[in-house]
Amino acid sequence: MDRRKFLKGSALFSGLFTLSPSDLWSSQRSTQPPHMGKAKNIIFMVSDGMSLGTLSMADLYSRNILGKGSHWMNLYHEKKVSRALMDTASASSIVTDSAAASSAFGGGIRVKNGVLNIGANGEKHLPIWQKFKKAGKKAGCVTTVTITHATPAGFCINSERRNAEPQIAEMYADLKLDVLMGGGDEFFNPENRKDKKDVYSVYRKKGYRIMKERADLKTAKNGEKTLGIFSTGALPYSIDRANLTDFKNTPTLSEMTQSAIDQMKNHPDGFVLQVEGGKVDWAAHANDIAALIHDQLAFDEAVKTAVDFAEKDGNTLVIITTDHGNANPGTIYGTDATQQFNSISEYKYANEYILNTIHKNYSVKQVKDWIYESNKLILNDDEARHLLSFYNGLEKEEGLYNYKKLPFKLYSDMQKSRNSVGWISMDHSGDYVEVAAYGPGSELLQPFIKNTDLHDVMLKAAQI
Amino acid sequence: MDRRKFLKGSALFSGLFTLSPSDLWSSQRSTQPPHMGKAKNIIFMVSDGMSLGTLSMADLYSRNILGKGSHWMNLYHEKKVSRALMDTASASSIVTDSAAASSAFGGGIRVKNGVLNIGANGEKHLPIWQKFKKAGKKAGCVTTVTITHATPAGFCINSERRNAEPQIAEMYADLKLDVLMGGGDEFFNPENRKDKKDVYSVYRKKGYRIMKERADLKTAKNGEKTLGIFSTGALPYSIDRANLTDFKNTPTLSEMTQSAIDQMKNHPDGFVLQVEGGKVDWAAHANDIAALIHDQLAFDEAVKTAVDFAEKDGNTLVIITTDHGNANPGTIYGTDATQQFNSISEYKYANEYILNTIHKNYSVKQVKDWIYESNKLILNDDEARHLLSFYNGLEKEEGLYNYKKLPFKLYSDMQKSRNSVGWISMDHSGDYVEVAAYGPGSELLQPFIKNTDLHDVMLKAAQI
Ligand SMILES: [Zn+2]
Ligand SMILES: [Zn+2]
Repeated sequence: MDRRKFLKGSALFSGLFTLSPSDLWSSQRSTQPPHMGKAKNIIFMVSDGMSLGTLSMADLYSRNILGKGSHWMNLYHEKKVSRALMDTASASSIVTDSAAASSAFGGGIRVKNGVLNIGANGEKHLPIWQKFKKAGKKAGCVTTVTITHATPAGFCINSERRNAEPQIAEMYADLKLDVLMGGGDEFFNPENRKDKKDVYSVYRKKGYRIMKERADLKTAKNGEKTLGIFSTGALPYSIDRANLTDFKNTPTLSEMTQSAIDQMKNHPDGFVLQVEGGKVDWAAHANDIAALIHDQLAFDEAVKTAVDFAEKDGNTLVIITTDHGNANPGTIYGTDATQQFNSISEYKYANEYILNTIHKNYSVKQVKDWIYESNKLILNDDEARHLLSFYNGLEKEEGLYNYKKLPFKLYSDMQKSRNSVGWISMDHSGDYVEVAAYGPGSELLQPFIKNTDLHDVMLKAAQI
Repeated sequence: MDRRKFLKGSALFSGLFTLSPSDLWSSQRSTQPPHMGKAKNIIFMVSDGMSLGTLSMADLYSRNILGKGSHWMNLYHEKKVSRALMDTASASSIVTDSAAASSAFGGGIRVKNGVLNIGANGEKHLPIWQKFKKAGKKAGCVTTVTITHATPAGFCINSERRNAEPQIAEMYADLKLDVLMGGGDEFFNPENRKDKKDVYSVYRKKGYRIMKERADLKTAKNGEKTLGIFSTGALPYSIDRANLTDFKNTPTLSEMTQSAIDQMKNHPDGFVLQVEGGKVDWAAHANDIAALIHDQLAFDEAVKTAVDFAEKDGNTLVIITTDHGNANPGTIYGTDATQQFNSISEYKYANEYILNTIHKNYSVKQVKDWIYESNKLILNDDEARHLLSFYNGLEKEEGLYNYKKLPFKLYSDMQKSRNSVGWISMDHSGDYVEVAAYGPGSELLQPFIKNTDLHDVMLKAAQI
């Protein structure tokens, strides 16, 4: 018996003798089911940029439109999880970016915004998936944005610049990560890389199966290393994937999660998997309520996939959270708030697709028809003209992920007047955020934590 | 032994025999201290219109500027409370007003916005403080807005119209409520009432001690009924109370809470007390970040007062929550976010006082000087001119509690560009909200609840 096991045993033993009647009440009314022992597997789930309003509205939408609550909230109804509020600050700011946030989880230290696991004096902190690899576990990441993006990268590598995605694609190959799935062909494909390097062939030489389409998930073999890159950049928004046939070849986050679990679950020493709903953050940056809700619900499906596995397995810790708030969206008081909010169910496409479709030679009528087709919204002529002014170069918007300077904010304001959802900005917020944990180790979650504490929870739960 | 006690006893008994090793772990790692038995007293605390961002920013401000975390968050750090997320909807909307919200807590049913404890078919639901009075307990309300406002009224009376404040002032007298403290002289004073009725004299005849100033709190006697009305309308914002000598005669929420507890705590059958931080909601409606944070911190002091009492007493349930979000404020990402947020500590007055002070004959320089004196903000001439246009009748803003049509939104936008805090609107939001509970009965709090569930928690905790 090693020392750790001995201590654990003695704590249990002394517990038997100090148990008071109130402890008995405490165990009876416990708001979560008991778990004990070691987490063999860990699934760490991040809905990137999820303010509490996003979680609330996805649940509300699910109840109002789909007739059932979200899986995340069902875990609360069924008292299956521990919960915490989390302070998400970085070393440089009360409002973090995703690189510093993932470094807090992944490196256990707060770093400056934009940096991956490198401290103020250049010190490199070993990323947590490397720690788990050394301990003999399999490790993977799946995401709806590029697999080289900040959130997966923060669990795997050190880099002064989160934007070094072409280099990060190469760094992953050296780490022998077991499952990598998401977007980012541009960083692997010689035709799209500036240096013309064929990064896929590097992975192939190391024995990876390369997957490019949703159907390839079926070919994935238990135990085989896989690199699944399903899109040039990020994967499509879930709402577009559902309504545009072009995107049917891309997998959902839940499908990637299931495949990743299946590929690693039989490993005798267990596995660790990060699951990121990365487009939730992008939808918040775009103030796009329909894209936001549908990607949050896609994340929610992945939550179900992970918890279903964990329930059957019994040795899996699932942590469900976000890295920071974004735009603090919320429904606004008003006579028709409910009906207006429910009208979001008429929206067919993400605002990015809607705005990208409009061209400068569109007439006012064409704009109005297209908006009606997309969102069942009736714009007036002034509104349509205002939108068109952005295509004629008369006006432009800046903004993260707004590569074409399209009128995301303007259009979101037009939607807001019809759907009663508001936003504080088009960027991250410093609100405390929600954390839930299921399974062995969930008892380590304290009611109020810093983001770095989740690093320790993972290591302690797995007893590493 | 009555039936209820018998059932409780048998549950405890069977617990002894079904206890497994994992139950032991569960009791050891419990995230809150055990409580058992009946709540003799209940203190129900509402920070009205508190979005999660408000709670987060008050804690952050307290840490950054005052060098200590908020008392509310300290209850989490010390693992003293149960927590829940709460759905705050009303019968008529996903976004509630304070009347429907208080009716959900107070009447146990969801009613339409604007209504106090009257159902769709006119049925009157007995307000919870009346239930507790019948059970022999003392009952009171303290608030920073008018004592006849929706939140206290929802625990006490039935009314089709929350705005019937002059009538509500009279209805309270019939209920023999033990402590009433807050603002609202306009609804009691014959000089200010339309019907010229002297409502104070009604209370005097029923044996109430009438209090008008902060110093009167010292004259309050244990066991004596008291009506403390400290302002014509609502009490001042906490930030103005701190910095304007005119307001030193008004008590803080914490002082009223302490006085109310002291007056009722020796009653053999216990007491129930509602404590409302009502100006938190008003500050959110005004998008006034300094007023918001300082009133949230004033509420936080009252939390400490209540929990300190409850800890000594041992038989008191304290529920700490809000009735709905409002404006979803939050800090926004940016290079200087931290420094900009911390600059709020330079603000001396509520925006209402700042904007009320400006007059139409002010020069641009006078406006700029006054804003600098009030907030240490340097406006440019265009900004000062824009503000002045509202005083010359050229522009106006509407809005709840904006009686003088002043430029609250415009000025808040000017502050936002300097303090990095944004708002989604000037009205309530439908976000799920935070609930915490301390003491006997806190174990009844489930992880996800509807607002009406808190009604049942109170009755069950007190075994009524
Ligand atoms: Zn982001
Ligand atoms: Zn309000």
